Amino acid sequence: MRRREPDLTVRELDTPVLTVDLDVVERNIASMQARYDEAGFRLRPHIKTHKLPAIAHMQLRAGAPGITCQKLGEAEVMAAAGIRDILMAFPIVGASKAARFAALAAEIDMAAVGDSETVALGLSAALAERGASAGFLVECDTGFGRTGVQTPDAAAELGAFADSLPGLSFRGFMTYPTLPATGDFFAAAVEAVRARGLEPDWVSGGGTGKERWDAARGAGSITELRPGTYVYGDRTCLADGSISVEDCALHVRATVVSRPTATRAMIDAGSKALTSDTAPTLEGWGQILEHPEARIYLLNEEHGYVDVEACAVQPQVGDVVTVLPNHACGTTNMHDEVVAHRNGTVVGVWPIAARGRLR
Amino acid sequence: MRRREPDLTVRELDTPVLTVDLDVVERNIASMQARYDEAGFRLRPHIKTHKLPAIAHMQLRAGAPGITCQKLGEAEVMAAAGIRDILMAFPIVGASKAARFAALAAEIDMAAVGDSETVALGLSAALAERGASAGFLVECDTGFGRTGVQTPDAAAELGAFADSLPGLSFRGFMTYPTLPATGDFFAAAVEAVRARGLEPDWVSGGGTGKERWDAARGAGSITELRPGTYVYGDRTCLADGSISVEDCALHVRATVVSRPTATRAMIDAGSKALTSDTAPTLEGWGQILEHPEARIYLLNEEHGYVDVEACAVQPQVGDVVTVLPNHACGTTNMHDEVVAHRNGTVVGVWPIAARGRLR
Repeated sequence: MRRREPDLTVRELDTPVLTVDLDVVERNIASMQARYDEAGFRLRPHIKTHKLPAIAHMQLRAGAPGITCQKLGEAEVMAAAGIRDILMAFPIVGASKAARFAALAAEIDMAAVGDSETVALGLSAALAERGASAGFLVECDTGFGRTGVQTPDAAAELGAFADSLPGLSFRGFMTYPTLPATGDFFAAAVEAVRARGLEPDWVSGGGTGKERWDAARGAGSITELRPGTYVYGDRTCLADGSISVEDCALHVRATVVSRPTATRAMIDAGSKALTSDTAPTLEGWGQILEHPEARIYLLNEEHGYVDVEACAVQPQVGDVVTVLPNHACGTTNMHDEVVAHRNGTVVGVWPIAARGRLR
Repeated sequence: MRRREPDLTVRELDTPVLTVDLDVVERNIASMQARYDEAGFRLRPHIKTHKLPAIAHMQLRAGAPGITCQKLGEAEVMAAAGIRDILMAFPIVGASKAARFAALAAEIDMAAVGDSETVALGLSAALAERGASAGFLVECDTGFGRTGVQTPDAAAELGAFADSLPGLSFRGFMTYPTLPATGDFFAAAVEAVRARGLEPDWVSGGGTGKERWDAARGAGSITELRPGTYVYGDRTCLADGSISVEDCALHVRATVVSRPTATRAMIDAGSKALTSDTAPTLEGWGQILEHPEARIYLLNEEHGYVDVEACAVQPQVGDVVTVLPNHACGTTNMHDEVVAHRNGTVVGVWPIAARGRLR
């Protein structure tokens, strides 16, 4: 009788390596979808967190009506992987990008956001030339100070303008993130656009985390949210209490390559594996699961500096550790591939297909 | 008569896009090589800055004896591109990496650094199995507090230990960066290893910038330096006075996608195009060449926030601007390709071949 080869586990992988636990991902997707269903929101996941067609399809199978992309290159990858409903949540500017958007819109359901006539005119021209059509949501700055029109009246005016253009249909409003002031802004925008004879059927908020959720629940007009990070979780989510460490799916496995002193260990994951991303709520650059007392206090490009003074068990050169990164979306973006596993057993090495699609 | 097509220029490229001016690169390589020749240092460029075989070959043609890599995957890419002399400046830990190092050493001149017996033993075992040999430099912590042995005696002891192992020849010492204390450390290490009957012929310092240079000039025993950033320059080099803005070769071209207010412009380059990398000497996340008064005061993943209040000419939606990034090495690492040009005329679109080679 032929003996079955033992399964490959994440413990055998060379480092630094990005890993994702699909059991945890599926659990996160199911629980978030259930929460949205109960609250009556559509869940349109932002794929910037994972950039993986397989996980986007998991999200759709769980009940998402479509996905959100930030870059056209991401949307092209996702469309090529069979996804048929995409909201572009970043303003599309320039003839080249508008033509690519129109090419997608000729094949699948596409919608765009914009906060200027320039964006609407560019999209309309490209769509008309292609004989295609797409939905248009007016991006509103409801207090965050990023992109977006500044007043509900301006939102309604731009919506009516876009709706008058060939190829574009006004659908509603969009913002990032969902803030306490978002509800009042959207209510006024809905009223103002109704006064112009248009009925919004798509009002989209964004952001992961408890505050965003509470704000969305309080904003009567919101029909969908575009969370991203919930699918993986990260150290930022852990710090704000929106996820537990057991529900974090994405890790960077790293090797201790040097123990120069009794208090310092160096690992082979620096800012090129973990990013320099941080958050006001965080100290340091990741959490080492095997050594909760350790502190990653500095990153160079390929070096992670770890203060191990407080560690009960001292890490040795050659030990492999599991780092929970500060920011899942940024970390995904550093890696060309991710090892998918289930509770440590490897199920595949996936190219991060939409990584680096900056245009 | 057939009319010649006009040359493609960087102005016609869609954004965000990474560009490198080869005229400037060649000038930087030539002037740094001349400076090293005059000072009597070998220049072993660190290719982490550009990750491009073509530029590594430019550096070799100008007089570099070989290159420096941080990751084995980078070394494999460079060896595959015909480069025959590589120093691995990061400790190689684990049997898989040691075997890959030995495979390279069987084909080309390879040297490794290490600060522990574990590293030396692993390399030796793999080299012996392969029937290959390589040089070994002891990494010394001369004051930076990263990797490296802590004392000159420990350096000499590890050097002698490595030299006693099959496949490894002790060559000398290495540190990063070159600090005022480096010279004394190296002098003592050289003396201590001579007392053990070994003669170091390779003493390697690192780091770009005036301070590092002055420290290296003061450290009598240094035979080579491993600068990286000089080839491109960046905003950090500009701030420390080691380069002028005209000698900066690497830029990210970005489009103004939104003008939500009279003082704010948003560009399509965020932390996924520019990195979150910053430095104590810098404010903000890049310098816009066309609008010197503008301030990139915040980055999200795909959004750059620009304060344009002080700008004499106000940027409009659709304008393309040229951003000098904070950190050349980090920025290169975000992009899958770079557009090579000469004074704006495109000469090629180069895959950043060693990007993402984290292992």
